[in-house]
Amino acid sequence: MDYSTSLLRLTFLALGAALVLIVARSAFRLPLAIDAPAASFLHGAGGCTRFSPWACRSPRTEKSPPRRPSHESDVPRHPLDPLTVTEISRARDLLRAHPPFASAPSALAVHALALDEPDKPAVRRWRKGVHALPPRRAVAVVRFQGESHVLAVDLAAGKVAPLPVPASGYPTMTMDEQNSLCAAPFGDPAFNATIRRRGVRLDDVACLPISPGWYGPAEDGGRRLIKSQCYSTEGTANFYMRPIEGLTVLVDMDTGKVVHISDRGAGIPIPAAKNTDYRGAANDDDDGTDRFGYQTVRAPSMEPAPEGPGFQIEDGHTVRWAGWEFHLKADARAGLVVSGATVQDPDTGARREVMYKGMASELFVPYMDPTEAWYFKTYMDAGEYGFGLQAMPLVPLNDCPRHARYMDGVFVAADGRPYVRENMICVFERYAGDIAWRHSESPITGMDIRESRPKVTLVARMAASVANYDYIVDWEFQTDGLIRIKVGLSGILMVKGTPYSHMNQVRQNEEMHGTLLSENVIGVIHDHYVTFRLDMDVDGADNSFVRVEMARQDTAPGESPRRSYLKATRHIASTEKDARVRLKLYEPAEFHVINPTKKTRVGNPVGYKVVPAGTAGSLLDPEDPPQKRGAFTNNQIWVTPYNKSEEWAGGLFVYQSKGEDTLATWSERDRPIENKDLVLWYTLGFHHIPCQEDFPIMPTVSSSFDLKPVNFFESNPILKQRPTMEKDLPVCAATA
Amino acid sequence: MDYSTSLLRLTFLALGAALVLIVARSAFRLPLAIDAPAASFLHGAGGCTRFSPWACRSPRTEKSPPRRPSHESDVPRHPLDPLTVTEISRARDLLRAHPPFASAPSALAVHALALDEPDKPAVRRWRKGVHALPPRRAVAVVRFQGESHVLAVDLAAGKVAPLPVPASGYPTMTMDEQNSLCAAPFGDPAFNATIRRRGVRLDDVACLPISPGWYGPAEDGGRRLIKSQCYSTEGTANFYMRPIEGLTVLVDMDTGKVVHISDRGAGIPIPAAKNTDYRGAANDDDDGTDRFGYQTVRAPSMEPAPEGPGFQIEDGHTVRWAGWEFHLKADARAGLVVSGATVQDPDTGARREVMYKGMASELFVPYMDPTEAWYFKTYMDAGEYGFGLQAMPLVPLNDCPRHARYMDGVFVAADGRPYVRENMICVFERYAGDIAWRHSESPITGMDIRESRPKVTLVARMAASVANYDYIVDWEFQTDGLIRIKVGLSGILMVKGTPYSHMNQVRQNEEMHGTLLSENVIGVIHDHYVTFRLDMDVDGADNSFVRVEMARQDTAPGESPRRSYLKATRHIASTEKDARVRLKLYEPAEFHVINPTKKTRVGNPVGYKVVPAGTAGSLLDPEDPPQKRGAFTNNQIWVTPYNKSEEWAGGLFVYQSKGEDTLATWSERDRPIENKDLVLWYTLGFHHIPCQEDFPIMPTVSSSFDLKPVNFFESNPILKQRPTMEKDLPVCAATA
Repeated sequence: MDYSTSLLRLTFLALGAALVLIVARSAFRLPLAIDAPAASFLHGAGGCTRFSPWACRSPRTEKSPPRRPSHESDVPRHPLDPLTVTEISRARDLLRAHPPFASAPSALAVHALALDEPDKPAVRRWRKGVHALPPRRAVAVVRFQGESHVLAVDLAAGKVAPLPVPASGYPTMTMDEQNSLCAAPFGDPAFNATIRRRGVRLDDVACLPISPGWYGPAEDGGRRLIKSQCYSTEGTANFYMRPIEGLTVLVDMDTGKVVHISDRGAGIPIPAAKNTDYRGAANDDDDGTDRFGYQTVRAPSMEPAPEGPGFQIEDGHTVRWAGWEFHLKADARAGLVVSGATVQDPDTGARREVMYKGMASELFVPYMDPTEAWYFKTYMDAGEYGFGLQAMPLVPLNDCPRHARYMDGVFVAADGRPYVRENMICVFERYAGDIAWRHSESPITGMDIRESRPKVTLVARMAASVANYDYIVDWEFQTDGLIRIKVGLSGILMVKGTPYSHMNQVRQNEEMHGTLLSENVIGVIHDHYVTFRLDMDVDGADNSFVRVEMARQDTAPGESPRRSYLKATRHIASTEKDARVRLKLYEPAEFHVINPTKKTRVGNPVGYKVVPAGTAGSLLDPEDPPQKRGAFTNNQIWVTPYNKSEEWAGGLFVYQSKGEDTLATWSERDRPIENKDLVLWYTLGFHHIPCQEDFPIMPTVSSSFDLKPVNFFESNPILKQRPTMEKDLPVCAATA
Repeated sequence: MDYSTSLLRLTFLALGAALVLIVARSAFRLPLAIDAPAASFLHGAGGCTRFSPWACRSPRTEKSPPRRPSHESDVPRHPLDPLTVTEISRARDLLRAHPPFASAPSALAVHALALDEPDKPAVRRWRKGVHALPPRRAVAVVRFQGESHVLAVDLAAGKVAPLPVPASGYPTMTMDEQNSLCAAPFGDPAFNATIRRRGVRLDDVACLPISPGWYGPAEDGGRRLIKSQCYSTEGTANFYMRPIEGLTVLVDMDTGKVVHISDRGAGIPIPAAKNTDYRGAANDDDDGTDRFGYQTVRAPSMEPAPEGPGFQIEDGHTVRWAGWEFHLKADARAGLVVSGATVQDPDTGARREVMYKGMASELFVPYMDPTEAWYFKTYMDAGEYGFGLQAMPLVPLNDCPRHARYMDGVFVAADGRPYVRENMICVFERYAGDIAWRHSESPITGMDIRESRPKVTLVARMAASVANYDYIVDWEFQTDGLIRIKVGLSGILMVKGTPYSHMNQVRQNEEMHGTLLSENVIGVIHDHYVTFRLDMDVDGADNSFVRVEMARQDTAPGESPRRSYLKATRHIASTEKDARVRLKLYEPAEFHVINPTKKTRVGNPVGYKVVPAGTAGSLLDPEDPPQKRGAFTNNQIWVTPYNKSEEWAGGLFVYQSKGEDTLATWSERDRPIENKDLVLWYTLGFHHIPCQEDFPIMPTVSSSFDLKPVNFFESNPILKQRPTMEKDLPVCAATA
């Protein structure tokens, strides 16, 4: 090795190290650390650990920081409240003292540490002010010396006990890992050399940690792996539009070492930075005027509300509005969790159960390009990256309206220390100008009737930014008992570099795997699936699943001038396989979760139905490795008997999972589900063929499904809603 | 005939006549007549005619009537402006003077009188202030002495010329007919006797005119027929919930005479009035308090807007907001018509064509009960009843938000006189708390980015009450170029009387044709289809239709670790049959209308795509008479070459039509559609199995579809939208 090569390597290593520091430092800006006094309850050692950049920053010195609720003194007040800062610290101490971790506690990496929710009967029984909280327990997923562990932590008794570990796969990456793995390629001289050969400065390079899927033991080699792909940040914050195409760096996640570099796209230019930045500040070089008068939007409904919001959040998590009451919390993996949703019966005033727990359980995002640098992109965002971990603070006035209230998340760094994700969830009342119900009489009846009622709803929202993509998840509660669950897609496409700058350069029938969005940029076709776990308890835990099938019925000769009509037939699903549904437009059905033991006055079983809207189904070969791992998307609807351990549709460990432990495998057991405590699963899907309007950042595309009362109430529960009168509305005068 | 029978008959006749008078008088309350000064331009005779209750009421004497825009002095200012009051009066004079009508002008019944829109090239060329208006013409559909006529009326030249008359079917009923036919059964002693036998007082009876469909010449007898079904109004304004079941009165519409009475349900009780009234005033006997705190709704966005709305309506019909400009008008048959929709290009400022004309063309609402009193209920609400005629004045603050602006309709009574339908359309800016686009950077990239933009849209709305049902139609324009067309269903179910008061009385497998909603009330299963005619002109009149089909592509052995991916293939439809689409979840596609001669900078054809959301397809036998008439619902998507005469998907005359002249028959001609001026048709469908929550009035159920730019803009057109800052929002103090 000659001197100049050594020097070069040394230089690159130094640059790489500098980049690590830069990345690490800038990461400090974001999550809110527990401020200085936290030291008193953060029982671990003082200084930084390699894991927890967020727990060790210096006290705030910003001028007039906004007043934040303190989480240091949080205490649990509801059985489902997430672990508090104090509880996390206590769990951390217990884990670090647990053999064999006690031998080297700084080598312990906490991948998940969350409330082990008390048993469902205890939670359903619990009443505030009447019962004490059930004992607080946590469940932890950790890595230690190359092994995964799952542990039960009894916070009161101070005990830690091992739980079974899944047969395949690895835990969700920690944020610290994702952070440090961004820098891993820079430690490899060959990587730095190829970057240089492409004419890119190393400090203009940003790499993303991309989960590799699982494609057999030969590729896997029994190791925990990540594939790094890199982009040029030169000239734009939207580096996603500047891929260094064809370069994939395989890194061993446990050692941080580069295992392999695949470098195939040397001839592909890096797309230009021009017109890619989306930040308001970046567009300040614009002349500042709104040339065509529509880049500044305002609406009357952004106005002040002198009376303030009409909902309450009690004890930090219990939301009350209109007839609804539910528990709302942030979760590192699921994002936003709605529990214990009950609605008040307008006739009796009784509080009635609807849903024990609802959340996004897993996502599946396969890209549709089988080539070397793309085939593995088949993300499971919740289990691989943490859907909640990636939910950044919401932007007031833009992500949520003026009168929203915000809720923080308390999460756990890799070293087990708590940190606060500010403003992760918002809650607001929504009035979109819609009509709750109406009727006018036509003049032909001679009745002068004009009755109409405005629709106001309550929304709980989070927005997760899983690297480039942004997912907006809304839980919207209506006064008529309907719950709408909506997923919006925005953010930035994952794009592919290409030599082409115009479609006339592309050969007839050449496979592009996407759309040419701009010069040298292809937006690659992909799907999104979001699978929701909906533990329905309709007027009690034991429910049944009914398919109300609609089919053409032909009339008998002479029976009627009509030849045909649509007939509805009810089928109660007795076992899991009976309750697998692939939607078909011309074989329509309604899907009810009923309580077979509770009837309305005229004898219909009370129920809620899941109402699909626009959706998509996966077309991949069921035996394709990604589809086996994502087999929970094989149907739009599944029903399973309640099982506390079946929470994550892709399995507890989905990272490099083989698909051995998914909703599809559980359902294959075909357990009885009639008049049982059951869980409904619904998958919302999108096919996305990108178009130029998605460049450089995508206008939001949304879809939703509803949980809707069906013979749950005796009659329209908002019949007596009062009309809005002019006198009910505040009169304001602009001040100053 | 003995004396007592004669007396009884006489009494019934007198009662019937009284009822006619009551119905007619009360009908006077609703539509706004042209006020007293109108007499000066209403060129016809002074007093009431049998047709026009609305044109002859006495001058207003209400205290402080709201200030309404005067329509007497309206003049057309845009080629597509609807006929003005003056023009309608002129057309009426011309028609009444036209032989043979001149012989008996009072026998002339005007069923439709509307603008004959100028030829499309002339309208597309026209510029305000540059060109004079094209000559104003009208098209009239009239009945005279038992015959239908279609006539072209040249307003300037004062000429009337006959046009071809459809081979089958009859014109849309006039409101006057619908009004007078409500009373027709009361002229028949046998009807009155059966009502009496059922224990109902005659003045508690209200009858609805129900279009009979068409079930062969034997049933038809070459006559224009209506089927009247009746309800008890005793104790409720919601008489729809009190059917006098099984009683169907067949009336000859031209003579007003009862032809046949079918009376089969004598044993079926009339459901009770209790709990059926939905009017706020009817619930005043409630204790007035909001017992459970959710029957009074308010939201911050109902607040005042000191700055007022951000859109303009110029010359009464041209709406301008953000980048959008379009012409908006009320139409007696289609309801709400959007024309000449153009959007401004954010890069060039150029105004670009999107859609020449969009409207609801026809509805099809088949009920799913083949029995005697129900089989014929297969409504086509636009062509039979007039979707616009049935759109009543909107209720401020409840149907539309506080800051909405309203637009009136000017329609034509049966005697040809104009009348005003107040507040038929509203226009408002909508801010629902949604996000136009967003991206946050994860801490792993070290970039502290939080960019988000709120979504504000513009809605044009109408709500048609076709007897019991209410249809809310929204055209929503987004700043990113998307148009969402949404249909909401509310109002009151069409229900069936039944002896059952509890489901335990119903035999296993007994066909109910619906759901027991309350004692003695079945909500009958039905479908709704709304077919929209969308004359797309994407950057010019000549466009092509492209199906971008997504299908599984298997990889070759050894090609990739992936076995499969989703591949998109573009198919340009050459003729109409190529462009018929029945949606399938597992055979997905995108549906683009492109301009094949206009390309983006990188060479993609500019386009708009139609994006279905939740919908339903008709399951009826294609040879079933109603489905033949409603054959335009056989596909979700059709494309036809532009033809001015193909506006109404069920044909010009759908009343008792045989299905000879529908979109399906036009499409069968299989005309070329590639690079032609083409029209896109989309049908939005709903299956409705009623549930108890729909009683006594239905919470709104909605579905929608989108017209969305696809490579129409070079990039995201709202990239430069400014974020909302606190300082941008008004600060208000509540006054007094």
